[in-house]
Amino acid sequence: MSLSMERFDLVVVGAGISGLSTAYHVKVDNPDMRICIVDRNPTYAQGNTARSDAAFRDVFTSKINYEMSSSSISFYRHIQFDLGFNLGMHFNGYLFLLGKEKMNSPVIKELSKTVDSKLIGKEEIKELGFITEPDREAARMMNLDEIEGGFIGKNCGIMEPDLLAAYYYSELEKMGAEFRFNTNITRLNLQPKEKLDYPGEPFIWQDKYIESVIGGGTELKAEQFFLATDVWTGPLVEPLGIDPLIQPKKVQVFQVSGPGIEMMIGKGYDSDHSIFPFTILPSPSIDLRPDPKSKSFWVSYSEKIGRSYGLEENPVADNDFYSGNLYPVLREYVPVFIESKVSSSWAGYYSMNNLDGSYVLFREMNLSILTGSSGSGIMKADSAGRLASALISGKEYAQLYSGHKITVSDLGIKNRNVDRETLII
Amino acid sequence: MSLSMERFDLVVVGAGISGLSTAYHVKVDNPDMRICIVDRNPTYAQGNTARSDAAFRDVFTSKINYEMSSSSISFYRHIQFDLGFNLGMHFNGYLFLLGKEKMNSPVIKELSKTVDSKLIGKEEIKELGFITEPDREAARMMNLDEIEGGFIGKNCGIMEPDLLAAYYYSELEKMGAEFRFNTNITRLNLQPKEKLDYPGEPFIWQDKYIESVIGGGTELKAEQFFLATDVWTGPLVEPLGIDPLIQPKKVQVFQVSGPGIEMMIGKGYDSDHSIFPFTILPSPSIDLRPDPKSKSFWVSYSEKIGRSYGLEENPVADNDFYSGNLYPVLREYVPVFIESKVSSSWAGYYSMNNLDGSYVLFREMNLSILTGSSGSGIMKADSAGRLASALISGKEYAQLYSGHKITVSDLGIKNRNVDRETLII
Repeated sequence: MSLSMERFDLVVVGAGISGLSTAYHVKVDNPDMRICIVDRNPTYAQGNTARSDAAFRDVFTSKINYEMSSSSISFYRHIQFDLGFNLGMHFNGYLFLLGKEKMNSPVIKELSKTVDSKLIGKEEIKELGFITEPDREAARMMNLDEIEGGFIGKNCGIMEPDLLAAYYYSELEKMGAEFRFNTNITRLNLQPKEKLDYPGEPFIWQDKYIESVIGGGTELKAEQFFLATDVWTGPLVEPLGIDPLIQPKKVQVFQVSGPGIEMMIGKGYDSDHSIFPFTILPSPSIDLRPDPKSKSFWVSYSEKIGRSYGLEENPVADNDFYSGNLYPVLREYVPVFIESKVSSSWAGYYSMNNLDGSYVLFREMNLSILTGSSGSGIMKADSAGRLASALISGKEYAQLYSGHKITVSDLGIKNRNVDRETLII
Repeated sequence: MSLSMERFDLVVVGAGISGLSTAYHVKVDNPDMRICIVDRNPTYAQGNTARSDAAFRDVFTSKINYEMSSSSISFYRHIQFDLGFNLGMHFNGYLFLLGKEKMNSPVIKELSKTVDSKLIGKEEIKELGFITEPDREAARMMNLDEIEGGFIGKNCGIMEPDLLAAYYYSELEKMGAEFRFNTNITRLNLQPKEKLDYPGEPFIWQDKYIESVIGGGTELKAEQFFLATDVWTGPLVEPLGIDPLIQPKKVQVFQVSGPGIEMMIGKGYDSDHSIFPFTILPSPSIDLRPDPKSKSFWVSYSEKIGRSYGLEENPVADNDFYSGNLYPVLREYVPVFIESKVSSSWAGYYSMNNLDGSYVLFREMNLSILTGSSGSGIMKADSAGRLASALISGKEYAQLYSGHKITVSDLGIKNRNVDRETLII
């Protein structure tokens, strides 16, 4: 049997966290299904999964995002603490630093009710090492808000997505799923169900399906296909007239080290915690992700206006971006950055659904597609996998690890039923 | 004063029907505003406005699309019949030919209540010249439905968008709006409000605005900019990190003539009408647009799956597409096509909002953007212009010609409030 004749029940394109989670849940529910996960990289989790901010939160304004993230976090907690498979999870919290207007906004009031959280005042924020009143001239020039208070999400923190990927991968291996790495799928092979061998097929009046996926010298046939190709979904589906419904937004991450930062990293938001919370500055909303291993902060920012949408072959972070855009702000709010240096940097992409900020999960023919994680894919990956698995299996509902049920078509196009997420960082 | 120093209150990019309608309503409401409409073509309405199916309907399932189209149709009627400015409007009706399932669907029941319409049966459909039961073998091969009945929208018909454009254009000229043709704007010039003359501006912490639009050797400055650039919006806004939220879908139109067609064109759906109704076949949903001038049908189809999204420099219609995809279906349902020939053809684009099928109208800084007409822009252009004008003027509501009020932010992103349109042809 030549390589090109291989046939599976399901081919998953993309061995990032979404593809792995989905394949895992499909395989758990359908042990006899022959599943192949194909990826262009030499192993799993080498795309945006490896380039993320590596944090989790359940602080979302939309119900669906809250349910998906809080259930996923519970499942990850179960893996790490019940099953003993370390995911590098720390519940060090998410600290949103807020100006006066946001501090008193209905969003914060509502979130205080729905998520496990606490509000802190200026004094506590100062004790954590921040300046709440930036220098007047700098504040004017850079539109910096005075920090009025902070919102701490408690069921939030940092984790290592590659370890989560390793968990799903090892379970998939045990269950007999097949992996095909170094295989860059570049084409979905659309064919009529009943071939007539006329030139110009498939015609508009023919029922169509994806017969195979092709690329890197390989052709994989399957009953069903699932794209977990994140920001690279467009180039695969647009030639077929399928809209990926997302834009790729580049996100740069800078690892910044220094003596003051090293001290700060070890300080929790209260005496029960010994790692600094993941922090979002008020405006511009720069993120600080503490990395206990390297004793540094990962500094990142996803630009609102000014950075082009689109894909580069090898996205890299630009140190001039750090020095011109991020450092001047950090210096004003977090004085330990004054004696610090960028020790490493990288860049990845967010798959942005700019219309409502939630996942889009839909099916065309025998092709299921998940896109639009919009910068919070890691923390929802388990729930997304359960939903995608339900779609692939033709189920109406997905039951999350939390027990909460979500109608699969709520995340689809035709019967889409999600409230717009306002807390996109 | 050199060309590059010209300064306006508002620059509208795109002199298609959306740009003209918007500029018209802005100028009517603000007679002193200095408006410039700029377009890459030698005159107005040379883009997709000129390539459309040139028809109008108020048959929509979503409330916002119904309100926008029915009000626009009333305004066009007013222009043609009260003001005596011919728009080539004929109320020859829209005939949806339906299989059994659709005929009995809740959508048709609901539409029968909300729009001026009537249902017709098989016999009437046969009298109009259709075959309701296609050849069994052909039907099987091509998935053709048996026609069970028809839904006729009465407040629907054909018109000439270039005449509507001419109306807005002549009124704009009278009111003193300026036009700049043969000017291909290729760049929106994003600048910080307070320039520091540091390299790397604008920084993330600077307030930004569009200082000018640049292209074709021209730079136009303005207080505000409005993009009515339809499917060409992406290349202008994506470099700034603004998502146009649409995909360009190519639509091919074939003008088909023949002795039988010539006869058929002159037959109305009842004795009060003398032009054949605009007709949509059951599945695949090919359109037949009667053209009384050339005594032909314009045949068009917007493909669901199989045709790539994306822009070509000079899109053309492909006669092989007609012969392989459209003709085999037409032959089965409309026998006059058997003796006919394609006498002309062209292609344009629909600006598809695939998430909910309605316009997206939003503002970033001093830049307002209208996209996503999704194949029904002509018939909603007047209302869209009133809404865009309200957005540009900072008003919360737009009052349509019908008197109906729409909250401007309903079509925006943050507070989007539209029900998904299901009747996209």
